[in-house]
Amino acid sequence: MAQTSDRPASAGPAHQLDGDDLASLDALFAPRSVAVIGASDDPKRIGGRPIAYLKERFQGRILPVSQSRAVVQGLPAVPQVTDLEAPPDLAIIAVPARDVVGIARECADFGVRSLLVFTSGFAEASSEGARWQRDLVAVGQAGGMRICGPNCIGQINLPDGAVTTFGSLPDLPAVHGSIGLASQSGAYGLTLFKFARTVDLPIAHVLSTGNECDVDVTDALAWLVQRPEVDVLVGFAEAIREPARLLDVARRARELDKPFLFLKAGTSVAGARAALSHTGSVVGADDVIDAVFRQHGILRPRSSTDIITWSRLLMARRRARGPRVGIVTTSGGVGVLMSDAAEAAGLETPPLPAKDQESLAALLPPFGSPVNPVDCTGQVVNNPGFFAGVLRTVAASADIDVVAVAGLPDTVEAGRLSALTELAAATGKPLVAWAHSRPWVSALAPLGIAVYDDPVAAMRAAGALVRYSAWQPPVAHICEENGERTRLARAVLQQASGGAALLDSEATAVLAAYGIPLAPAMTAADLGAAREAARGLGFPLALKVVSPDVLHKSDAGGVRLGIRDEAGLATAYESILTEVKASRSDVRILGVLVQKMAAPGLELVCGMKRDAQFGPIVAVGLGGVLVEILRETVLRQAPHLVSQAPRPRRAQPLQRPWGQLPSGPRPVPR
Amino acid sequence: MAQTSDRPASAGPAHQLDGDDLASLDALFAPRSVAVIGASDDPKRIGGRPIAYLKERFQGRILPVSQSRAVVQGLPAVPQVTDLEAPPDLAIIAVPARDVVGIARECADFGVRSLLVFTSGFAEASSEGARWQRDLVAVGQAGGMRICGPNCIGQINLPDGAVTTFGSLPDLPAVHGSIGLASQSGAYGLTLFKFARTVDLPIAHVLSTGNECDVDVTDALAWLVQRPEVDVLVGFAEAIREPARLLDVARRARELDKPFLFLKAGTSVAGARAALSHTGSVVGADDVIDAVFRQHGILRPRSSTDIITWSRLLMARRRARGPRVGIVTTSGGVGVLMSDAAEAAGLETPPLPAKDQESLAALLPPFGSPVNPVDCTGQVVNNPGFFAGVLRTVAASADIDVVAVAGLPDTVEAGRLSALTELAAATGKPLVAWAHSRPWVSALAPLGIAVYDDPVAAMRAAGALVRYSAWQPPVAHICEENGERTRLARAVLQQASGGAALLDSEATAVLAAYGIPLAPAMTAADLGAAREAARGLGFPLALKVVSPDVLHKSDAGGVRLGIRDEAGLATAYESILTEVKASRSDVRILGVLVQKMAAPGLELVCGMKRDAQFGPIVAVGLGGVLVEILRETVLRQAPHLVSQAPRPRRAQPLQRPWGQLPSGPRPVPR
Repeated sequence: MAQTSDRPASAGPAHQLDGDDLASLDALFAPRSVAVIGASDDPKRIGGRPIAYLKERFQGRILPVSQSRAVVQGLPAVPQVTDLEAPPDLAIIAVPARDVVGIARECADFGVRSLLVFTSGFAEASSEGARWQRDLVAVGQAGGMRICGPNCIGQINLPDGAVTTFGSLPDLPAVHGSIGLASQSGAYGLTLFKFARTVDLPIAHVLSTGNECDVDVTDALAWLVQRPEVDVLVGFAEAIREPARLLDVARRARELDKPFLFLKAGTSVAGARAALSHTGSVVGADDVIDAVFRQHGILRPRSSTDIITWSRLLMARRRARGPRVGIVTTSGGVGVLMSDAAEAAGLETPPLPAKDQESLAALLPPFGSPVNPVDCTGQVVNNPGFFAGVLRTVAASADIDVVAVAGLPDTVEAGRLSALTELAAATGKPLVAWAHSRPWVSALAPLGIAVYDDPVAAMRAAGALVRYSAWQPPVAHICEENGERTRLARAVLQQASGGAALLDSEATAVLAAYGIPLAPAMTAADLGAAREAARGLGFPLALKVVSPDVLHKSDAGGVRLGIRDEAGLATAYESILTEVKASRSDVRILGVLVQKMAAPGLELVCGMKRDAQFGPIVAVGLGGVLVEILRETVLRQAPHLVSQAPRPRRAQPLQRPWGQLPSGPRPVPR
Repeated sequence: MAQTSDRPASAGPAHQLDGDDLASLDALFAPRSVAVIGASDDPKRIGGRPIAYLKERFQGRILPVSQSRAVVQGLPAVPQVTDLEAPPDLAIIAVPARDVVGIARECADFGVRSLLVFTSGFAEASSEGARWQRDLVAVGQAGGMRICGPNCIGQINLPDGAVTTFGSLPDLPAVHGSIGLASQSGAYGLTLFKFARTVDLPIAHVLSTGNECDVDVTDALAWLVQRPEVDVLVGFAEAIREPARLLDVARRARELDKPFLFLKAGTSVAGARAALSHTGSVVGADDVIDAVFRQHGILRPRSSTDIITWSRLLMARRRARGPRVGIVTTSGGVGVLMSDAAEAAGLETPPLPAKDQESLAALLPPFGSPVNPVDCTGQVVNNPGFFAGVLRTVAASADIDVVAVAGLPDTVEAGRLSALTELAAATGKPLVAWAHSRPWVSALAPLGIAVYDDPVAAMRAAGALVRYSAWQPPVAHICEENGERTRLARAVLQQASGGAALLDSEATAVLAAYGIPLAPAMTAADLGAAREAARGLGFPLALKVVSPDVLHKSDAGGVRLGIRDEAGLATAYESILTEVKASRSDVRILGVLVQKMAAPGLELVCGMKRDAQFGPIVAVGLGGVLVEILRETVLRQAPHLVSQAPRPRRAQPLQRPWGQLPSGPRPVPR
């Protein structure tokens, strides 16, 4: 596959996720045999670490290649990759940069299916390295061999035991979770993996892509989304090299009901400058990325903490039917804090229906509150019996979509655990809890209850889940093809004055060609023609200068509104000429547009821009002189990629039925 | 001291932090002798836990009081508090609610200086309990005995080893930090303490106040701020019972250069409803709290995570001279992400000056970037030598106020540690780092470098520090007293029509009394009087209906602007009468205000409201019909509490010189 930056950034009809492509990535991300070229006997060195990790639990063949040793870390080694009995799925290359292309060619000729190049010193380091990188791409293309890297830290694939990174890792966990992470930056990916482990959130895969000479983050995501153990998909990158393919991944994730989070760096002015300096990437307008992600159902975390806290809830595979949270608390103050956080996260905490409040009042101690938050007070310690009843009642309420439990003891105490177990079995609604998380996380994760130390984080995660659950595919109303209109519009454009922008008169002609109604107007070359036009159009009128040199007509004094009679017309005409001529000495004035004043009404703005990544983007919103200040504008990628009739809320059944207990972290196969 | 909710919510001249008050709180929060009434031999029971914790490291006297045992947890016990040799500083009460008042009276009579009442079942539980609570307050007042609680989980004071909580705790840490936390909610405080410990952030004090019958969160904060080991002050509450005293604490914290964070719950509509239901507290308008906190230099975290991540940096006692961050990274992608996060946190990441870029270019490998972020690339692994030089150059740059280091190895490797040690010694600027935090936190905390797993959290913390450092006391320009003006205004008000609001004519008279210039105006009772007024004022004019029944005059058709002549005046006058009469059948029309049209200009709005907690609040901002949409309004508490001339940026020297190494976590005395 060619270097991805050469591919057109099409936003047209969706690409299919290519079956052959994905199969070729299996050799890289889930190999059955791994050669390590430049193998080291020292398990701490770059050529030694992956062998040490693979020995821990990889069930395929580990094939050290070393010119100096016949045995590496207890495994028999061969001097050349071509000395192996058969070509491996994956060859890891940990040799000096100048030797990489030659070895890659040997691998390709031998039939190796994929390369993972640790070595740095390529395009990121020097012009000589850039040339080596181009040669590497050519070798891969010619040999049908996928290449990950160079300058890549490698992969963590816990379900298959295929840990091929040279990064230092804590002990590999005994269980793996259902989160698949793809990160251009290996340092970011590995640090997030370790951060997640310190808070007991298990990540199944970390795929990093380094210089992305062939395989990029979108490829890694496309591979992850179809893995059955992956329930939550996470991407990190500063540049989206294949926008259309990323949207394919998003659609596939939706079809499989797998939440897709993408942390997009380079969103700020400073970040965009840094990205340009880092990789020469133009990061794209942030408001467009925001709109397109929203349109295609991609969640947008803003920090590592967002990724970790949202994933904790999303991996529980529960979905929300609406934004209404029922809070059950033993601490009034924390109930208040969670109510604040819910509102800030776009959620609601409505008072419970009268019927439910009555049931709760019968259970609660005096001075408890049955409204919402439901305040059990500290009495829950003395009388834990009513806790299960309260949870059951709140979870069963027709007005509640998400249940939040605030305040569990420090130890996993049998009464409270059994109440929560009963709750999880009784409802398919999403469940979050606030507590000192250490004792509770592993006890409640298998039940699908996400536990947080920070009550605000619990609500923000619920907010992300509700946004995910509420997403529906956009419905497109694409205008029918109309050759005649297109021909008319093209004719206008061919005769256009050739200025930086269309003249008003030209733009109105293009819009008219498409049948878009406008206030009637005529261009007048002199005051006499303007009077003539006014007689035809009738007062009140607007006058606007026509000039290829004036883009912002009001600023140049080129607009007069509400002209009521012939006298006003003459005054306005002359004053426009005077002011516009004064605004710039060499201004060309082609005439004045005489236009019927539109009746008062709501001012709207409609615009279009062509985004470098996502193609034509349409903006619609409140118009008028305050348009930049009000910022009441929405953006949509055009045409919408989904053009069929609206799908029902859940188009595809979950692989596991809605509300069934998730299976929780799975043991790693040994 | 009376129940605090009875105190007037004065916003007037500042109260002094009362020395006697603080001394009386010493007995509660740093007692030298503690009796436990209702002592239990079981270290897991409510009456047993504090004894077990105190035995660990408390150097004062532990005095169990038990009617059933002569020895409790190995300590001699007495049957009654009056059997003790001398009255203790603090008596903890862990007996049934019905017995509490009687025992409190015994304690007061015996001379006990303070009570901590664990027992629940008071105002939070029943009307009988509320009566007991009132009796308890009376006993405390009569005996000059401070009371904390009832329904209070107790305190953690690590520097004095005075851990008097019945909450379950992890092992007490060997070191304590410099963070002092006061929380109305004991559950919130203890959970935050444990959360902080799991991320290696040491908190020195957790003071909780429960039902706050006497001692409240503001008292606890007032006590904490003057403790020498407390460098960062944190409060959590849903209601601010003593607004003026809270602002005193803020001023004292500023004088001592101790950052003060307050997490205020009850900020949302839902949260306010929950707070009302929880404690009957009216939480106050959130925009006012925001403005007053900002005005008085109180930082406002929104989550537990904010508290923890901000405190980690603030406790390093470094201050920022400005908002400019220099990022030194080994990962380009993370550098971009940090630049984004810096901008979102109100910081800047300017390109370094040319001179500094030249110095860096000489150090960096080819394809590294000297701009900002300064990208060291992965070459730092092969050649760690240049890392120290890069850090030194960035830290010394005149254009940089905060240094952020992204990407440290997983182990505390000598080369990198020595570079960071040198950096910390060479600069007083704030320092943050992104890394897998576990290995680095404790190595770098003593150097004053705050380490984060989440690069975005690092930048948000830096943003909070920069806001703290940039704060300057507000300057007030208080109008001189002017009895004559006040008398005139009062006279107008006494004669006012008595409607729900002042008439336009009355309001203008009040403003005129204070010499505030307004467009000249006269009230006309009929068209003839209006014509007379017009001749006096001159055209163009505005006409506005005068009616006690019409508050929103434009909506009722009661305003005409830009009247240019007598004919227009007559038309406008009649149409106002017609439209206003049509708007409401029983409307009273007292006349029409004839006012000189103001010249076009910038429309501003100025308003005042009386906040229940903080008194008169003035709003100033962009006016016009879009005032609610533009929301370009600032609020200020009036009058400003600080009326002297502007202070220099740093009015008080730090206890330790600026830029000196902080001493880091201190060992607990044993």
